[in-house]
Amino acid sequence: MTSIDLNADLGEGFGRWRLTDDEGLLSVVTSANVACGFHAGDPATMRRVCELAVARGVTVGAQVSYRDLAGFGRRAMDVPSAELAAEVAYQIGALDVFARAAGTRVAYVKPHGALYHRVVRDEAQAAAVVDGVLLAGGALPVLGLPGSRLLELAGRAGLPVVAEAFADRAYTDEGTLVPRGQDGAVVADPDAVVERSVALAVSGAVVARSGARVEVRARSLCVHGDTPGAVELARRVRRRLEASGVRVGAFA
Amino acid sequence: MTSIDLNADLGEGFGRWRLTDDEGLLSVVTSANVACGFHAGDPATMRRVCELAVARGVTVGAQVSYRDLAGFGRRAMDVPSAELAAEVAYQIGALDVFARAAGTRVAYVKPHGALYHRVVRDEAQAAAVVDGVLLAGGALPVLGLPGSRLLELAGRAGLPVVAEAFADRAYTDEGTLVPRGQDGAVVADPDAVVERSVALAVSGAVVARSGARVEVRARSLCVHGDTPGAVELARRVRRRLEASGVRVGAFA
Amino acid sequence: MTSIDLNADLGEGFGRWRLTDDEGLLSVVTSANVACGFHAGDPATMRRVCELAVARGVTVGAQVSYRDLAGFGRRAMDVPSAELAAEVAYQIGALDVFARAAGTRVAYVKPHGALYHRVVRDEAQAAAVVDGVLLAGGALPVLGLPGSRLLELAGRAGLPVVAEAFADRAYTDEGTLVPRGQDGAVVADPDAVVERSVALAVSGAVVARSGARVEVRARSLCVHGDTPGAVELARRVRRRLEASGVRVGAFA
Amino acid sequence: MTSIDLNADLGEGFGRWRLTDDEGLLSVVTSANVACGFHAGDPATMRRVCELAVARGVTVGAQVSYRDLAGFGRRAMDVPSAELAAEVAYQIGALDVFARAAGTRVAYVKPHGALYHRVVRDEAQAAAVVDGVLLAGGALPVLGLPGSRLLELAGRAGLPVVAEAFADRAYTDEGTLVPRGQDGAVVADPDAVVERSVALAVSGAVVARSGARVEVRARSLCVHGDTPGAVELARRVRRRLEASGVRVGAFA
Repeated sequence: MTSIDLNADLGEGFGRWRLTDDEGLLSVVTSANVACGFHAGDPATMRRVCELAVARGVTVGAQVSYRDLAGFGRRAMDVPSAELAAEVAYQIGALDVFARAAGTRVAYVKPHGALYHRVVRDEAQAAAVVDGVLLAGGALPVLGLPGSRLLELAGRAGLPVVAEAFADRAYTDEGTLVPRGQDGAVVADPDAVVERSVALAVSGAVVARSGARVEVRARSLCVHGDTPGAVELARRVRRRLEASGVRVGAFA
Repeated sequence: MTSIDLNADLGEGFGRWRLTDDEGLLSVVTSANVACGFHAGDPATMRRVCELAVARGVTVGAQVSYRDLAGFGRRAMDVPSAELAAEVAYQIGALDVFARAAGTRVAYVKPHGALYHRVVRDEAQAAAVVDGVLLAGGALPVLGLPGSRLLELAGRAGLPVVAEAFADRAYTDEGTLVPRGQDGAVVADPDAVVERSVALAVSGAVVARSGARVEVRARSLCVHGDTPGAVELARRVRRRLEASGVRVGAFA
Repeated sequence: MTSIDLNADLGEGFGRWRLTDDEGLLSVVTSANVACGFHAGDPATMRRVCELAVARGVTVGAQVSYRDLAGFGRRAMDVPSAELAAEVAYQIGALDVFARAAGTRVAYVKPHGALYHRVVRDEAQAAAVVDGVLLAGGALPVLGLPGSRLLELAGRAGLPVVAEAFADRAYTDEGTLVPRGQDGAVVADPDAVVERSVALAVSGAVVARSGARVEVRARSLCVHGDTPGAVELARRVRRRLEASGVRVGAFA
Repeated sequence: MTSIDLNADLGEGFGRWRLTDDEGLLSVVTSANVACGFHAGDPATMRRVCELAVARGVTVGAQVSYRDLAGFGRRAMDVPSAELAAEVAYQIGALDVFARAAGTRVAYVKPHGALYHRVVRDEAQAAAVVDGVLLAGGALPVLGLPGSRLLELAGRAGLPVVAEAFADRAYTDEGTLVPRGQDGAVVADPDAVVERSVALAVSGAVVARSGARVEVRARSLCVHGDTPGAVELARRVRRRLEASGVRVGAFA
């Protein structure tokens, strides 16, 4: 039986500000990428999200980022390797305190925003993220883009790697994401997102922007939670996956 | 045989800025209060200090603070209890990653600056710091001022408590510190600091500002590291303690 | 003819986060308390709000705060006077750049959150805020609570002072606000808020929590903008004031 | 008579941390690049440096940076143009409050660290910095590297541009700086730095790393102030310039 994980970014408020519908998403997804304070995520929010995740049986992962609250971690930064590795480990450790207190552990690591995109190709930063994960101990799985330098280096370092796909993003014929900003980069139609989710999970393939069928082998689907209707769409995706005979469950 | 711990604040730089002579102090003290990023202490510095501490056999403690880089944690803040508890746990967890990577663990917790002074009397904040330590797990000892609400509540919560004394600060007849800003609050004469260290360690007493002898029972002496000559003074204190038959060793 | 100002806090997002409905409120109020980056308010938002305010004929004021993004400026801080004065001036200067670029100037200053409440009684911090306003030059009017130390010291320093009232807050018999957290501190019924607005503007009085009539002489009414329905309520207040023969216009 | 400006980075502490010898440098240089809070520079320090600069007759400039205290502005960031322009204007406005209070005005703008190097070639960021300067008003001169995109776009926008040179950096045959990290990038010998200063000021040329003579036309020389002996070296440079018949004076 085919099995897929649903992951979402959570706890992305800061202090007075809220962004993600944490309660709503935690009733749908199987893996929670919890913000760790560098692009979002204050300690009290991190604690609450960990408690909610455990209560719902959702796996907790560390969503690590550049130190950039003002830019929400969406501005690529040339961080020296040693600094970046230490920053990654710092975030994992900070989140792990709340995961432990809630009765679980940080079970995986996923880079956020500009760091996520940078480590697709940037050798030095990808290696630094891997170093940070190794520093944090426990050989945590790394969640990222299939074919990225990050997953390659993580695998080489002996860390489990988990490839993810995006049902609401257009793909090129090479199986990479059409960059945001380009026409049609985002799939806005909810029905299409649901269909594509099933295709990705069941057949490991999706229709590229060109119309061609392209293989995208992913163990996890990322659903977005920062837009109106996001939780409802995620719920539809999950129901349809299950109706299609796919088991929805955490990878970790 | 009498035994005393020497503790100092370490890793109190941030990025480009340095403050404490970490290498120098780590060759003298037995417990390192490592800044955790809220008043000072970037991740790369935290990592380096933990590695140095382990290499020198110095115990690592978390020096937790209000979130206040601009004020170096010296501006008291009315932080709601739940936020403060989570902030304390966050800092402990972040430091523990580097302690573990260096082959040890965070072995105790000491509040910094304005938080240190606030929890002498503030019931709610003292309780929040204790909650934060409990959240972080491991029943870590709490280092603080004898007679403080913090140590009282920590003890009541089942945490080990460790009282500390200051050889370079004047005491009242009640055994509390003369507040900074008052005349003679700080003992500037190095010879006097050395003498007072021995008196505190050997006889558990010190001459108060009034001239009276006052009891100050402490398991640890705090030496300061952010002034010129600080390391040399700490070294003299340690030599004299040892020459006086006091065993200098970590409490934890 | 009676005249009243309507002021609201604006631009209280930060980077990715939004809080206030800036466009909506700027179509209702006559004075905009713009966040300056210390509790909220990134530079791009400050610029946009200034441009919108000028387009709508709304006066721009600097909403100055403690440096506390994590706490949204709601955690009182013991900031030394010289630091606080400089921090206040810094914020005014930063906002003024965008006010000038939009064709206007910062026309007044209002403290935010915990600082607002602290300077009701705290002599040193009230004096520091006044020093900060004086540092910034231009003898800017200060908006605050009638009877506060802030307005008293500002007036004594030769600054224009403007008293404000809150139609959605309960008053004591002495004309001060019932502290948040006490029963009935907030007036939740929109109809009551509208009625009280008119009473405050027309008769300079309001029914206190005790039922007694209490004088509250205010030149400005503060309307809140961070709750659902806030803009619609502000609009009703304004319509009713105008229908009651009150001229709604900026004080500055 | 040949005339040259001496500029230095000042006020680069933050809160408890000090870096630059502000008093010492202000007795030597003619233009002060004052940190504005984004990579360094708290409000109280900005105020003090402006007052000292005015007392010594030194011109005040805004040293604008990426928002990156943890990296001291040395980590290049992909900041979107509108954000970067607003961030630059914000910093200029904040500093101008203290310049005005001290009896002067911000007289020029110089990017710091990674931003300085980025705008040598990056069209979008160079244009954003120019937009920020224009936003701040007053047609402020821009200080930067000759041949940089920044100076080219600033000039095209009608802003005065001022080229600077570095007596302690090696030059290529094309008149650009040998990147830090390459062999011989920094001229460590104080005597050589003094000689090169005179050559740059008097003949508008310097010996490149290759040994060839290369033209570097600069109206200002940058002296560094964050190393031991920096102030004394700057003093020697100034004395030798004056002894060589060069008038040392601000460009603005």
